[in-house]
Amino acid sequence: MVSETVRAPTVPPTVPTPRKVAVLGAGSWGTAFAKIAADAARVDADSDPSWKVVLWGRDEAAMNLMAETGTNDRYFPNVRLPGNLEFTANQREALTGADVVVLALPAQVLRDQLVSVADAVPEEAVLVSLAKGLERGTGLRMSEVIAEALPGSEGRIAVLSGPNLAREIIQEQPTASVVAAVSDPSAGMVSRVCATPYFRPYTSADVVGVEIGGLVKNVIALCVGICEGRDYGDNSKASIMTRGLAETTRLASALGGRPETLAGLAGMGDLVATCSSPLSRNHTAGRLLALGLSVEEVSARMTQTAEGIKSAPVVRDLARRHGVEMPIVEAVTSVLAGEITVDQLQPMLLGRRLKAETPHGGPEGTNAPGQ
Amino acid sequence: MVSETVRAPTVPPTVPTPRKVAVLGAGSWGTAFAKIAADAARVDADSDPSWKVVLWGRDEAAMNLMAETGTNDRYFPNVRLPGNLEFTANQREALTGADVVVLALPAQVLRDQLVSVADAVPEEAVLVSLAKGLERGTGLRMSEVIAEALPGSEGRIAVLSGPNLAREIIQEQPTASVVAAVSDPSAGMVSRVCATPYFRPYTSADVVGVEIGGLVKNVIALCVGICEGRDYGDNSKASIMTRGLAETTRLASALGGRPETLAGLAGMGDLVATCSSPLSRNHTAGRLLALGLSVEEVSARMTQTAEGIKSAPVVRDLARRHGVEMPIVEAVTSVLAGEITVDQLQPMLLGRRLKAETPHGGPEGTNAPGQ
Repeated sequence: MVSETVRAPTVPPTVPTPRKVAVLGAGSWGTAFAKIAADAARVDADSDPSWKVVLWGRDEAAMNLMAETGTNDRYFPNVRLPGNLEFTANQREALTGADVVVLALPAQVLRDQLVSVADAVPEEAVLVSLAKGLERGTGLRMSEVIAEALPGSEGRIAVLSGPNLAREIIQEQPTASVVAAVSDPSAGMVSRVCATPYFRPYTSADVVGVEIGGLVKNVIALCVGICEGRDYGDNSKASIMTRGLAETTRLASALGGRPETLAGLAGMGDLVATCSSPLSRNHTAGRLLALGLSVEEVSARMTQTAEGIKSAPVVRDLARRHGVEMPIVEAVTSVLAGEITVDQLQPMLLGRRLKAETPHGGPEGTNAPGQ
Repeated sequence: MVSETVRAPTVPPTVPTPRKVAVLGAGSWGTAFAKIAADAARVDADSDPSWKVVLWGRDEAAMNLMAETGTNDRYFPNVRLPGNLEFTANQREALTGADVVVLALPAQVLRDQLVSVADAVPEEAVLVSLAKGLERGTGLRMSEVIAEALPGSEGRIAVLSGPNLAREIIQEQPTASVVAAVSDPSAGMVSRVCATPYFRPYTSADVVGVEIGGLVKNVIALCVGICEGRDYGDNSKASIMTRGLAETTRLASALGGRPETLAGLAGMGDLVATCSSPLSRNHTAGRLLALGLSVEEVSARMTQTAEGIKSAPVVRDLARRHGVEMPIVEAVTSVLAGEITVDQLQPMLLGRRLKAETPHGGPEGTNAPGQ
């Protein structure tokens, strides 16, 4: 629970008070975010919640149990969720009157879910994506999928990403995050509904950079997990993270994102947190691949999806379409497709020729490996 | 030992063959680098070493023992050093005929050491600094100290830095590094004398960026160590590393370095490797500080210097002189000086106000926290 002695972060005075926050998706991140939002509603009001927070999940029995016990036993068995958080399995009920709709749904189901309830999404609601991935087939980012599924919503879409391991947030470990939206009021509104003493949102105008950082990170973490499974040292792993962020930055820039976003919390911060955490899903999946398990066996062993497995080929295709070199993403995709073995990965990760990182005579025309 | 089946990296054909490499300083990094250089001499020649490699240390008995046993028992008791590596306690003998002089000496003794043997340093020798630190009193970087100690050497100075944990290198774990020099031939020569299948040097023209990355990292690692000692989670630690690199980049830029160097192996790579390693000295020192030990007690407990303890106030002074904001370095320096307790550190590390990370309306005038 939020310590009452800690003051809430200051919220810009221009942001109106919301009436209701609907969180769609009761997985680990959806549940953790619902706790943040419920705490924020209480902290903002200084005692009584000043707006409603509702968590929606598809499984009616599970949602009823959460309402009864006040816990999400599947993901966080020993954590009591805030008393002001409501639970429902009725999506239309959750959406009614919401001015902030938080989308904590898997990347590949987001479009269908939104289309099926499009008429129930309030017209002025800000839509926040927590999903990290690209839509298979179209290669679209989540903000683009939302804009297509809910025509006219473009100006009200936000994305949230950062070094945000859910199991740390649920324990109220101090955490920062980035909220990006094309419109300043949307970013401000989202910040307000998730500002608590333990969760600190920073606003950004760079939706593309924040989304690319959050989704490519999963592929890089998969690679670092593979390296860990093969007993690579910290020197190698740090080099791969550095080069992985460099190729992520190249992709984001090609799509109109800003390099400084990738140097920030939604880029480097998220990547480092994910790769430091032995419990992260993509990291774990990588280690299992390194032990010789097939992609199918890895998926079968894990209760939650390793988003990097799904994203890798879609990221590779996107990069190729834009002429961006992403050697680590290429290599990981080849391992996942069974085209190369894990043993063949190393020479692809660590280049062979002596090269200039920051060449004499200026940075033009270099394929600088550490950049 | 180097696997003979692995081909050596290609060396640019313009680099002349050296005659002798002298490594001054038989601590952990000096010893590890001497092994690299001896292996490189063998690999380059494809069998017989094509140039001499000599390791100098001040303690005659210790150097004689190394020559007898072929190991450096103090730092790497179970590692057999290459048979072609020579050992001496006679500095002038080590320097005679050397065309590459590797300076693996502590930052605070480098000047005196160089001045005392200035007449014995061959006129055309390339001088490579492996030291990470600023000279106390003057606030000079190591390359600047070398230039002052050996007038006329400016064009032949190089620095080497990267994600280079010595205990991994000594085990031939794949490692990359950055060699920076103002002159391309100097950088090429250093690359040649340390290119082995397990150690891959990349050249750079950004001496300032590489030096600043290597030395400020020690202060950030000290901070991350303190956080670890206080049970901070990976979310917080990743945020502090991200912000730490951001303030390092600001300092490097103010001194004429390039931001892309800090995004590369000598910046992010080195920082991530150091902070990932529970055995790194600065990391360990931070954890001991967090447990309530004084700076003196921490120093007494550790066999090797935690360079970050010495560097922190010097980095802070340098930043202040150049008008660069470095809140993490300021906070760590205050802890080390006993001005604040470890408990008072957290609010200084994680800001209090909701802020824009990449603001709407462009990046101008922002004090973006994640940048």
